[in-house]
Amino acid sequence: MGLLERHDTGAVARLHMNAPERLNALSDEMLAALQAQIDALAEDRAIRAVILSGEGKAFCAGHDLKQMQAGRQAEDSGRAYFADLFTRCARVMTGLQKLPQPVIAQVQGIATAAGCQLVASCDLAVAAKGTRFGVNGVNIGLFCSTPMVALTRNIAPKHAFEMLSTGRFADAEEARQMGLVNRVVPGDQLAETAEELAASVAGKLGAAVKIGKEAFYTQAGLPLDEAYAYAGQVMVENMLWRDTDEGISAFLEKRKPDWQQ
Amino acid sequence: MGLLERHDTGAVARLHMNAPERLNALSDEMLAALQAQIDALAEDRAIRAVILSGEGKAFCAGHDLKQMQAGRQAEDSGRAYFADLFTRCARVMTGLQKLPQPVIAQVQGIATAAGCQLVASCDLAVAAKGTRFGVNGVNIGLFCSTPMVALTRNIAPKHAFEMLSTGRFADAEEARQMGLVNRVVPGDQLAETAEELAASVAGKLGAAVKIGKEAFYTQAGLPLDEAYAYAGQVMVENMLWRDTDEGISAFLEKRKPDWQQ
Amino acid sequence: MGLLERHDTGAVARLHMNAPERLNALSDEMLAALQAQIDALAEDRAIRAVILSGEGKAFCAGHDLKQMQAGRQAEDSGRAYFADLFTRCARVMTGLQKLPQPVIAQVQGIATAAGCQLVASCDLAVAAKGTRFGVNGVNIGLFCSTPMVALTRNIAPKHAFEMLSTGRFADAEEARQMGLVNRVVPGDQLAETAEELAASVAGKLGAAVKIGKEAFYTQAGLPLDEAYAYAGQVMVENMLWRDTDEGISAFLEKRKPDWQQ
Repeated sequence: MGLLERHDTGAVARLHMNAPERLNALSDEMLAALQAQIDALAEDRAIRAVILSGEGKAFCAGHDLKQMQAGRQAEDSGRAYFADLFTRCARVMTGLQKLPQPVIAQVQGIATAAGCQLVASCDLAVAAKGTRFGVNGVNIGLFCSTPMVALTRNIAPKHAFEMLSTGRFADAEEARQMGLVNRVVPGDQLAETAEELAASVAGKLGAAVKIGKEAFYTQAGLPLDEAYAYAGQVMVENMLWRDTDEGISAFLEKRKPDWQQ
Repeated sequence: MGLLERHDTGAVARLHMNAPERLNALSDEMLAALQAQIDALAEDRAIRAVILSGEGKAFCAGHDLKQMQAGRQAEDSGRAYFADLFTRCARVMTGLQKLPQPVIAQVQGIATAAGCQLVASCDLAVAAKGTRFGVNGVNIGLFCSTPMVALTRNIAPKHAFEMLSTGRFADAEEARQMGLVNRVVPGDQLAETAEELAASVAGKLGAAVKIGKEAFYTQAGLPLDEAYAYAGQVMVENMLWRDTDEGISAFLEKRKPDWQQ
Repeated sequence: MGLLERHDTGAVARLHMNAPERLNALSDEMLAALQAQIDALAEDRAIRAVILSGEGKAFCAGHDLKQMQAGRQAEDSGRAYFADLFTRCARVMTGLQKLPQPVIAQVQGIATAAGCQLVASCDLAVAAKGTRFGVNGVNIGLFCSTPMVALTRNIAPKHAFEMLSTGRFADAEEARQMGLVNRVVPGDQLAETAEELAASVAGKLGAAVKIGKEAFYTQAGLPLDEAYAYAGQVMVENMLWRDTDEGISAFLEKRKPDWQQ
């Protein structure tokens, strides 16, 4: 069994972090494994939704602190290693957003520091009741500055600042209300809920979801008029596809679409 | 009865979409009627608040799909028509924000796709219990990319992404919690609630609401220091008006203001 | 007793607005006193958290309207005075964000107009049950354009627009749900709750909180990739501190850190 397993079921890929004894920490090896799968998924036209999950008691507890401390042995006290580490980590996090497929975090136990960032970086998230979310690096003297980038793009600033500056955990229900997760379900329904969500997304016209996901993040940073100019062009391209023509016709004729996708 | 009726009551204009058999779809004709009224209201100094409502079972079900499909007959398969359509639609949506008067969406039944965008594009919204909101174009192969522009400026990204990628409807109460509507009331109190809200806004000093609404959207896109520099100038202008002088004096003297507006 | 008292308890400074008969209005004198304390705190390495509170029935009722009206006596009808006033006020508001220490608003009674802006400008806020929040200048003909700058960076646009255009008050619980305050507690637990929150923040590694707070506001305005590049550098600096090395080592060895701070 590898550090990161991939299981495909139809058009859904599950990436399963499998280092439960280390709480699925984002070690150099785990980051490399995630990046390799992200790179593979970016080219995989058969996959239309991705689930990211973790084995054991924790979804992900963030960076591998032992490995980070070992990095201090270098001549520069680890400066180059840390800079490279955070660059690689950010590449994984933004890589999830840049994937053509929606990515669903399936979260249980704890999601802390860069583990919480991983949840925030996915497009959608479902959590088991009782899951706790934290950006608690401040407790050990390391403010969660990079997790903050993803977190503050998900939840209100005062909520984010409290979690960051006090290290306080938010439970799953609170995380849902704040906007960090979409759904909270009992633990024994967690995988099933993530799979239903993935199946729902994967059942759509893949090209439409792909063009839509890209547009989602692109337009968010634009002024209103520019966002509309851009999104309008996206809609025009979408309209001109054969399968969209068929989808609309089928809807008007109250029948199932016959998509070629 | 026209496609879009306008009824003025005192300083409040009601724009009522009246194509119930087509679920008040945003056809070319409806968009043109809306644009004409927006243009008229932009110059109408007697009107200080606007209500946008729809006749029948739906507030608005989005674009007119039959008309869009007919657009494919053109030599370019509809490319020019679709580009023009989304440009006209965006002009209506942003036109609501650019109006000097606050615009209140009064929403019942369903508000889907560009109909949901219409709600998101209004300054305020009240909804009847049971109303359902969706950006469900993805179900027919057409991702709601332009509705997304307005929606993501109202609600948290994970909530928006779920609605967009799964087509899931949010009910009125959920829409309220997400920030898409301000109030949810029983259906038989809907018009009255919208009118009370409109009356409340229309009862203020019109010039102050006008300068404030413009500043609301302008400052939102600026960095903090620039936003303050700009908003400070707006406040100075506001302070120098005769009616504001009178409003503050009246407040300090515990009497009603004698406004010339 | 001065207009603004400062009481330090260990690493926590309390700034207490003490003009209850004027509802702690932000007069020229109060703004000057706040600015002086902000300037002092910016250089005060012994202080690691700040509480901002107000004496009496109101946390703060905004600008001093009598003083503003008196400003109209000038030859330019007050234009220069008002411009200077809003500049000074914005300097106080943004000064709270620019402080190295987190600032916690401890709010009771009412927080209106620039008083609500003060709450929105703090990093964290706790409120007593029954506290009412408003940006109700519109009621007297003065749209709360500068308070809006802070408010719209805390809560969803439709919620903000309703408060601004109707003058409606939000109660403490609603303010919490909207993201304007972090916690709501009975009045007799208010000071204690603020102090617990301050103690929690002050108990962290001060340098980490300082670098983190600055990064919090800096990265918020950057595009995602730039935000990560910047935050990554912040993390590298943070990692290279002796106290952070010690903090992580202590955590791995399950002992308390021996910080030099």
